Amino acid sequence: MTQPKLRLGMVGGGQGAFIGAIHRMAARLDDRFTLMAGAFSSDPARAEASGATLGIDPARSYASFATMATAEAARADGIDAVAIVTPNHLHAPAATAFLTAGIHVICDKPLAHRLEDAERLVETTLRSDRLLLVTYNYSGYAMVRYARALVAAGVLGDLRISQTEYAQEWLNQPLEQSGHKQAAWRTDPTQAGLGGCLGDIGTHAFHLTEFVTGQRVEALAADLSTFGPGRILDDNAHILLRFAGGARGMLWASQVAPGQKNGLRLRLYGTLGGLEWHQENPDALDVTLFGQPTQRLTRGGPTLPGLDIPAPPSRLPAGHPEGYLEGFATLYSDAADAILAHRAGERSVSTVLPTVADGVRGLRFIQTAVTSAQQDTLWLAL
Amino acid sequence: MTQPKLRLGMVGGGQGAFIGAIHRMAARLDDRFTLMAGAFSSDPARAEASGATLGIDPARSYASFATMATAEAARADGIDAVAIVTPNHLHAPAATAFLTAGIHVICDKPLAHRLEDAERLVETTLRSDRLLLVTYNYSGYAMVRYARALVAAGVLGDLRISQTEYAQEWLNQPLEQSGHKQAAWRTDPTQAGLGGCLGDIGTHAFHLTEFVTGQRVEALAADLSTFGPGRILDDNAHILLRFAGGARGMLWASQVAPGQKNGLRLRLYGTLGGLEWHQENPDALDVTLFGQPTQRLTRGGPTLPGLDIPAPPSRLPAGHPEGYLEGFATLYSDAADAILAHRAGERSVSTVLPTVADGVRGLRFIQTAVTSAQQDTLWLAL
Amino acid sequence: MTQPKLRLGMVGGGQGAFIGAIHRMAARLDDRFTLMAGAFSSDPARAEASGATLGIDPARSYASFATMATAEAARADGIDAVAIVTPNHLHAPAATAFLTAGIHVICDKPLAHRLEDAERLVETTLRSDRLLLVTYNYSGYAMVRYARALVAAGVLGDLRISQTEYAQEWLNQPLEQSGHKQAAWRTDPTQAGLGGCLGDIGTHAFHLTEFVTGQRVEALAADLSTFGPGRILDDNAHILLRFAGGARGMLWASQVAPGQKNGLRLRLYGTLGGLEWHQENPDALDVTLFGQPTQRLTRGGPTLPGLDIPAPPSRLPAGHPEGYLEGFATLYSDAADAILAHRAGERSVSTVLPTVADGVRGLRFIQTAVTSAQQDTLWLAL
Amino acid sequence: MTQPKLRLGMVGGGQGAFIGAIHRMAARLDDRFTLMAGAFSSDPARAEASGATLGIDPARSYASFATMATAEAARADGIDAVAIVTPNHLHAPAATAFLTAGIHVICDKPLAHRLEDAERLVETTLRSDRLLLVTYNYSGYAMVRYARALVAAGVLGDLRISQTEYAQEWLNQPLEQSGHKQAAWRTDPTQAGLGGCLGDIGTHAFHLTEFVTGQRVEALAADLSTFGPGRILDDNAHILLRFAGGARGMLWASQVAPGQKNGLRLRLYGTLGGLEWHQENPDALDVTLFGQPTQRLTRGGPTLPGLDIPAPPSRLPAGHPEGYLEGFATLYSDAADAILAHRAGERSVSTVLPTVADGVRGLRFIQTAVTSAQQDTLWLAL
Repeated sequence: MTQPKLRLGMVGGGQGAFIGAIHRMAARLDDRFTLMAGAFSSDPARAEASGATLGIDPARSYASFATMATAEAARADGIDAVAIVTPNHLHAPAATAFLTAGIHVICDKPLAHRLEDAERLVETTLRSDRLLLVTYNYSGYAMVRYARALVAAGVLGDLRISQTEYAQEWLNQPLEQSGHKQAAWRTDPTQAGLGGCLGDIGTHAFHLTEFVTGQRVEALAADLSTFGPGRILDDNAHILLRFAGGARGMLWASQVAPGQKNGLRLRLYGTLGGLEWHQENPDALDVTLFGQPTQRLTRGGPTLPGLDIPAPPSRLPAGHPEGYLEGFATLYSDAADAILAHRAGERSVSTVLPTVADGVRGLRFIQTAVTSAQQDTLWLAL
Repeated sequence: MTQPKLRLGMVGGGQGAFIGAIHRMAARLDDRFTLMAGAFSSDPARAEASGATLGIDPARSYASFATMATAEAARADGIDAVAIVTPNHLHAPAATAFLTAGIHVICDKPLAHRLEDAERLVETTLRSDRLLLVTYNYSGYAMVRYARALVAAGVLGDLRISQTEYAQEWLNQPLEQSGHKQAAWRTDPTQAGLGGCLGDIGTHAFHLTEFVTGQRVEALAADLSTFGPGRILDDNAHILLRFAGGARGMLWASQVAPGQKNGLRLRLYGTLGGLEWHQENPDALDVTLFGQPTQRLTRGGPTLPGLDIPAPPSRLPAGHPEGYLEGFATLYSDAADAILAHRAGERSVSTVLPTVADGVRGLRFIQTAVTSAQQDTLWLAL
Repeated sequence: MTQPKLRLGMVGGGQGAFIGAIHRMAARLDDRFTLMAGAFSSDPARAEASGATLGIDPARSYASFATMATAEAARADGIDAVAIVTPNHLHAPAATAFLTAGIHVICDKPLAHRLEDAERLVETTLRSDRLLLVTYNYSGYAMVRYARALVAAGVLGDLRISQTEYAQEWLNQPLEQSGHKQAAWRTDPTQAGLGGCLGDIGTHAFHLTEFVTGQRVEALAADLSTFGPGRILDDNAHILLRFAGGARGMLWASQVAPGQKNGLRLRLYGTLGGLEWHQENPDALDVTLFGQPTQRLTRGGPTLPGLDIPAPPSRLPAGHPEGYLEGFATLYSDAADAILAHRAGERSVSTVLPTVADGVRGLRFIQTAVTSAQQDTLWLAL
Repeated sequence: MTQPKLRLGMVGGGQGAFIGAIHRMAARLDDRFTLMAGAFSSDPARAEASGATLGIDPARSYASFATMATAEAARADGIDAVAIVTPNHLHAPAATAFLTAGIHVICDKPLAHRLEDAERLVETTLRSDRLLLVTYNYSGYAMVRYARALVAAGVLGDLRISQTEYAQEWLNQPLEQSGHKQAAWRTDPTQAGLGGCLGDIGTHAFHLTEFVTGQRVEALAADLSTFGPGRILDDNAHILLRFAGGARGMLWASQVAPGQKNGLRLRLYGTLGGLEWHQENPDALDVTLFGQPTQRLTRGGPTLPGLDIPAPPSRLPAGHPEGYLEGFATLYSDAADAILAHRAGERSVSTVLPTVADGVRGLRFIQTAVTSAQQDTLWLAL
């Protein structure tokens, strides 16, 4: 049976943007959404030009997200959901506008600029009876989902150690001083928030850690650095973690690590086994049951023998690599399912889909890390 | 400036098919095509059901490709191009129907069932003044394109050795005897043609070899095996190659190699350097200039220092993996460019885009290998 | 010209021991030492049996190291040097005995049981006018030496980040409770000292970090865990580092990480580049000059173009793997050189050879980490 | 109980030689042999100087192997075995001299210069009642031994496909024209024999293939190339194989492949599974049981669950890499065992130890490949 296609709007993502184009490809891949409307830039001329390039009906290419929310809510064929892909400081106001207008929101991470903004969105979301989803896209990778299921099934035993890292090189030089738009807003506290590297990629690493372990980090102790000359926000974060269940961990995030492209890695060790996953080779998951050889699991390939864990989402046979866009697209397809279920009256959301609660958690992570670092790596509850 | 979206039709690719869904995702990814019509199965009921599932206007969901070609050619809003994704024996008749109707054709490989059918398509294509493109999709990978450019620029010096392999495991057991649709037609000479593994994956390996080296294989000597019990066509091919320029090579294709998922690899060695590429990690290309350390080039990352070779096509920054669908989508985007250029009067096609000539070459490869193997690995010109 | 072979003695390393056999193979590999005498066990019967198995003249197979030091010093053909390979608590007394007797000492790490014992050895060594070398054997690997030279030459620019880890799995279960001799003494504070995992492998990781960076860690903050049931000492250490030059680092050591065999890794990042080395593939060193592709350097292979850094020590051509024993043997060969130079009047020691100062540094690392952990991860100077 | 040390002599291996030093380190590593005598060069002055450097008693440093064989046989403390490490054309005469003198022979590969010389050694060996062992040293690697045991135990089912390759880069340029001693004799038919790359490394690849599969190659078809300008012998070999048991294979050997250091790899595929081993990472063996994830076995680590195959020889725990010298040393230790067993009356030799029969097989491989290539890749029995 054919599934109805959903109507999608977008805030941000105009010319010169990065993540907007990715959201559009991700939304398109599984054919669950059609992009119908947008406020693609806070600059009206750029917004209009971007809409035209994207083939959007000019009547639905708006100069501001506020106008867009009102206008789309009023249309019979108005959008079902909006993707918010602006710099961080606009996430909360835009999300609020659309939720209040009764439109589901798919928001890029971090959910907001400041923790209090994120927290306010919990109440706003609840009141709106709409979905607020956050694109912690790495949780959409098939083998990340499978890793989470393995841990939940007890394959690793009791978790003891978590080692997460997310390292990049691209801010190794102060690009923000030479007009690089992506670098500029990410290193500007008024647009990015309290965290630099922490907010941009640290939140991904933190979400991945809690997502796969299925456990809450209950305290952290952070040492933050700012290596780029003239930079205000952190560009390197060294963080120790303590989990509610007794496990200990490390989290390293950096944007000044030459040789590291997009090095998000997770390694977990428990009483019975360990696992290792690396974003740059996302279809693979190495699992060791203590006392046995390491097994390399592959998306689409054989799963761990003797266990009854369903295979993770997969579009292609093993050996035909799925990549970043496919993982991202899985979140969009999950969002489509969730929106259709909501329409049918369902009010609980799939446990694998990051919601406003995860968004708040990300902001709390940033704020706690910054505070800990200011107090000389003090352990703080989270 | 916005590019016009093209209207796409499809022949084959209904329920239970594999490659059709991939063509649809690939065509959709870069937003250059909209699927408008189809003859999704030779079984009318399945064709209709498939069209409905895909959200195709029932009036444009046809029971046969012949009807479809005529009807679409007659519509003002008829399709610009058709994707042919049937079993091999239907490629040539379907392509002929659409070309004759004045519709561009994007055909899966191998181009035809038999060499003579492929050869006839050369004339048909010429007469039609339409494009016939063949989806040797692995040539769409960014680093494959870059490898080709490196070789063309003389970075390896004079080519001496080519080692190509394409190994899979999925036909290790005789799936075709237990109702596996994909296995069934691929092992059936009446649908697949002369080659089993040769046609299904050997042609990819052969195309990749000539594509990257930029050289013609002028002779081959083959040893073909059929290991699967009850199987008629080859499921393992060992082939020696001689190139026009004096290089020598090996090509191994197998579908009975446990542990190999989709192991397409190319290694080239010349007087000045060597390179290595592996489809399961497609964003990487290892290049060695003799006397220097091996350099790992990455899609989106730094290119080889001191050379003025343009970076290959790329949607994402380095470290954000692009996979099989992205490589395939590049062919579709190239096809869209070629169709628009054709509409504008251009009659030559980008040299990286596989056309009917490449399709014929693939069939000649299959037939020559089969003949050589029948004559005890005799060297035969190609 | 042929080099005189040196006469070696050994304390510890009898039947059931692990590291003694390794020292013997390492000492033998480059033919610079002949094992002539030993006190192979604190158990006289086992000492005698071990000496016999090793083909040692019974007159020179001693029941105690004290007797051995006196007797060997009195012989005209007495040993030139002694290797001390006992559990940690015997290192200092044995080293003292031999130094005092005028015999050079090659001591396994950590140098002593407690920091104060190590510190006392500084004075003892000075007074003795003999060499006290410590087998931080990982610093003998060719590519570790080369990495150190690269950093010293400024190839990475100013160091910003250091990520060191040393992870094993072998103490994942409480082997010490089932009669495993190696596990027993390493987890027993009276034999091992203050550190468990810290002393056994953390000291290696720490030495490697300072050795390759050429910088002192000036402060650390530690979180230590003891996961093994009934265990007293740490079996997992999470440590933050601050370097004198402004760099920041992480050091992770663990013996309860299933899947990790002997996972000692070092990654360094500076303003101009980064490098990565992994002990389980010791012949390789990945170096990235920011803005260029990553280069894989190989022992015996081409070095970094454009730099005048001498190739590291190497016995075999590239691609013929050297392993753990070869790295260890390099320390022994360096020791032989140092002893011969000492004999010729030279009193300074090669900067790459770990001496008593490095040994003290290792103990200070252990004690500081333990103290920091007891004070809730307080930053402490080192 | 202590094992008696054996007395070793050496023919060849003087100053400027490569493989001699390796044999000496390998013989020394496990302390089973003492080098006592030698005829280290065919140049008397160099022979004498080499002996002095090696610390050999001048009375036992001979100017010719013939003198040495006679003299050592006459001594009460004469050598037990001789290592022959000359260029190929001297292997057979030297081996004959020592066997005839009643001294066991450990000969480098290939066993002789020409097949007929190798065949004559079968009779000579038999008559001598002494051992003639051939150092196909790659068969000494632990995981190669384990792979052989897995195949013998039926873990892969019936063998279908064998892919062996041995690729190097070092003869990419004509080093033999600029006084490179190693290159000079290896490319000179009067010293090397019929095969260039074939003899130097192809024989290793061939032995490894038959050793691990436990099957005889019954026919081959070869395409040989000589790329180096002015070179006479092959420097690249492409060979198709047919096994007695019905399997098919490819063997590629090359010394002109830039980027390849010492790339000896073996991959086997059978009805039930596949395996992969690579000499540059010799402690690992990847095994796939069809339908299960690939398992990475590690020397010293867990073996394949559910099978009762003894762990292979190992000196070090998992993760502490053993390399080329350790694999080579295993052959020497096996040789020591065999010599002691022979002394005790045993006349059969361990099946894993390469003997004169393997040596003959290697020469037959070279000659058959050369003949096949001369007849345009004709299949020839072997």
